[in-house]
Amino acid sequence: MDINGETLVETTISDVGTYENQEVTLKGWLYNKRSSGRIMFLILRDGTGIIQCVASKKDIGEDLFSRLGKLNQESSLVVRGIVRGDSRAPGGYEIGVTGCTIVSEAFDDYPISLKEHGVEFLLDHRHLWMRTPRQRSILLIRSEIIKACRDFLDGEGFVNVDAPIMTPSACEGTTTLFPVEYFGEQAYLSQSGQLYNEAAIMSLGKVYCFGPTFRAEKSKTRRHLTEFWMIEPEAAFMEFEEMLELEERMICFILERVLTGCGHLLKEIGRDTERLTGITPPFPRLTYTEAVGLLKQRGIDIAWGDDFGAPYETAIASEFDKPVFVTHFPTKIKAFYMQPDPDNPDCVLGADLLAPEGYGEIIGGGQRIHDYDLLLERLNQHNLPAKDYEWYLDLRRYGSVPHSGFGMGIERAVAWICGLEHVRETIPFPRMINRLRP
Amino acid sequence: MDINGETLVETTISDVGTYENQEVTLKGWLYNKRSSGRIMFLILRDGTGIIQCVASKKDIGEDLFSRLGKLNQESSLVVRGIVRGDSRAPGGYEIGVTGCTIVSEAFDDYPISLKEHGVEFLLDHRHLWMRTPRQRSILLIRSEIIKACRDFLDGEGFVNVDAPIMTPSACEGTTTLFPVEYFGEQAYLSQSGQLYNEAAIMSLGKVYCFGPTFRAEKSKTRRHLTEFWMIEPEAAFMEFEEMLELEERMICFILERVLTGCGHLLKEIGRDTERLTGITPPFPRLTYTEAVGLLKQRGIDIAWGDDFGAPYETAIASEFDKPVFVTHFPTKIKAFYMQPDPDNPDCVLGADLLAPEGYGEIIGGGQRIHDYDLLLERLNQHNLPAKDYEWYLDLRRYGSVPHSGFGMGIERAVAWICGLEHVRETIPFPRMINRLRP
Repeated sequence: MDINGETLVETTISDVGTYENQEVTLKGWLYNKRSSGRIMFLILRDGTGIIQCVASKKDIGEDLFSRLGKLNQESSLVVRGIVRGDSRAPGGYEIGVTGCTIVSEAFDDYPISLKEHGVEFLLDHRHLWMRTPRQRSILLIRSEIIKACRDFLDGEGFVNVDAPIMTPSACEGTTTLFPVEYFGEQAYLSQSGQLYNEAAIMSLGKVYCFGPTFRAEKSKTRRHLTEFWMIEPEAAFMEFEEMLELEERMICFILERVLTGCGHLLKEIGRDTERLTGITPPFPRLTYTEAVGLLKQRGIDIAWGDDFGAPYETAIASEFDKPVFVTHFPTKIKAFYMQPDPDNPDCVLGADLLAPEGYGEIIGGGQRIHDYDLLLERLNQHNLPAKDYEWYLDLRRYGSVPHSGFGMGIERAVAWICGLEHVRETIPFPRMINRLRP
Repeated sequence: MDINGETLVETTISDVGTYENQEVTLKGWLYNKRSSGRIMFLILRDGTGIIQCVASKKDIGEDLFSRLGKLNQESSLVVRGIVRGDSRAPGGYEIGVTGCTIVSEAFDDYPISLKEHGVEFLLDHRHLWMRTPRQRSILLIRSEIIKACRDFLDGEGFVNVDAPIMTPSACEGTTTLFPVEYFGEQAYLSQSGQLYNEAAIMSLGKVYCFGPTFRAEKSKTRRHLTEFWMIEPEAAFMEFEEMLELEERMICFILERVLTGCGHLLKEIGRDTERLTGITPPFPRLTYTEAVGLLKQRGIDIAWGDDFGAPYETAIASEFDKPVFVTHFPTKIKAFYMQPDPDNPDCVLGADLLAPEGYGEIIGGGQRIHDYDLLLERLNQHNLPAKDYEWYLDLRRYGSVPHSGFGMGIERAVAWICGLEHVRETIPFPRMINRLRP
């Protein structure tokens, strides 16, 4: 960085400690400021952190001091100064300002002030809201969770294989599809990459896809987005029990990573990390039938065969400190591809993993039907046209093997790990029934 | 793995070397077989590799020997046997079969035989075609390229921030949009995450998105898919020159990773890796004006101000052994957000990176307009409704900074690195104008 002809070390707020007592330049935005006559405190943020810069009229001159004094929040700056250790500072350092270039003065009507705002207003200004420390922390934790998922699966020998987004048919029910006009044909946005993963495992053994998935959910709940990201591992020869163990290992790997790498961020957003520590395999397991029994004991009116709603999930999860598996759902309430339990064909080898503290289902998965005749029968029972699924049936014609897989919704996992009330804060630009902007 | 009550080491073909002279089990698919009377050679693949399993009638008995002899290609098997070193074997080992369980006998009409097929036939059977060694290798290389991109950007301090897919307005021109009906509103599938990245850098400094992007390209060329994956880094305060250097480092990082980790796969698909070695920064740079001059010298009829077509790109790239930057395109042929060159406002600080050997543009990028008034003027010149871009204008109202970014098309990069004639082989399930299936 060359300011006024001198070359200085250019660094970031997260790295200033490396340059104690040296003069550096920082580039960022004015988050806040206060002045006491001849001294001004500029709070600078730069994406990597936040730091106090102390400017005195004596050091920087009347003119610059006065211009800085008039700056609005969010103005962009290049600050030059000496890095000083300061045990009272949040990051341990402050900057003794020696010079400053104002890159761009922010207009004086910055919508996101440091006071409280209504959530619709914040969502309308998501592009600015995301600059606040809390939202930044959540986005950083999201990024770490995604990286942890990938590193875990890569380490277990899974190959990243991306499934298509525009598809000719439905995977998870036909009522929540977003239609796309595809050169005169009707296509739909993918609800899951699972069926395509099932093809890929026959080539690569173990695969995962990670991409956006779409459900035209008309429900406005704190758990639903219309566009959400899902990581979906699938493996040939992996049977139900092995799949549950893979889920346990993945969740524990993610928690370990986030607690180690993002502990300070979790603290900043006020997450009680005690609730996330000590979560180790095995996770408790309940069959659907046991879960229904438990709910009845707790006075909840549910009949065997009813699907689980969010309140039921919360009631079950509240009994445990760890995520809990609910397994062996009734065949009739589950998707056509689920493998029946050999001991009881009225139930399937499927499992939902419910997060603690009422965050609901974060993973859904199971063993898939590998028998050709049974799969064909199920397609017919579900009134799905076999013609559309010929390629999927091919996977059972040519070298079918027992196989399983699951999908973890990234936003649900982020909501749980960050302890957020609503999934809308877990993704950079949320899409909900009434929200397509910005 | 428990077969007949005995517990054996279960391993994969890639790991058999660890168990030389031990008895192991392998799970996979029959890729080919041949028999010479009392000995049968079963070629097994399992996703991690391919190995010859030698079965003798004496060791496994008449009955099993005869059943194996009748198996069709792609039948799934659990093979038990002794790992034997064999210097003639491609992987250095073969299996002396001691037992075998047939998991599923493939139907006898497997469409992808070991002979040649037409490409439309192969694309119709993509779910099976992907099992062939060549397609498997390409998918593995693709996966490594994606991982390399992410590792590179993570290592450079970029934060993964996913951009939305369903968007209310266009980023790259309005003629190639896929419309989606969004609860009665008109939405479009994203063509680029760039505009959203520009919001995110003001929070996080350096970000990247990586996801599917969509262009309703009516052209049937060997470089175009309607759905393709793009990795898009963007950084606050990063100016044009710095961006070019980031591109150079990223390309070299990817090549290094692929040559190191996937050298055997490149060899398998017949790629001349000599063409990929020794590619180091700096890459040659031509301004658009220089490129036009060069094309004219080569007898090509082009006028200053014409857009570059694929044949022009190929002609330019063929002059160099490395990827080449073409920079400073005429303002009037580029997108509204491109920063004008301060020395010549008729050109922009934008660059395309052209791969060698005629693979065309693999990266497009540039510095973005950071001045509010200029951006507003450009929106008007391009007849884009300022109302739809209010949020994007906000980024220039509140703390605007010079910034740049680029997008690399994964499939174009895979095609170049693998040396493929057509991008349709670079993605698990390609989508083109006439192809939405399987």
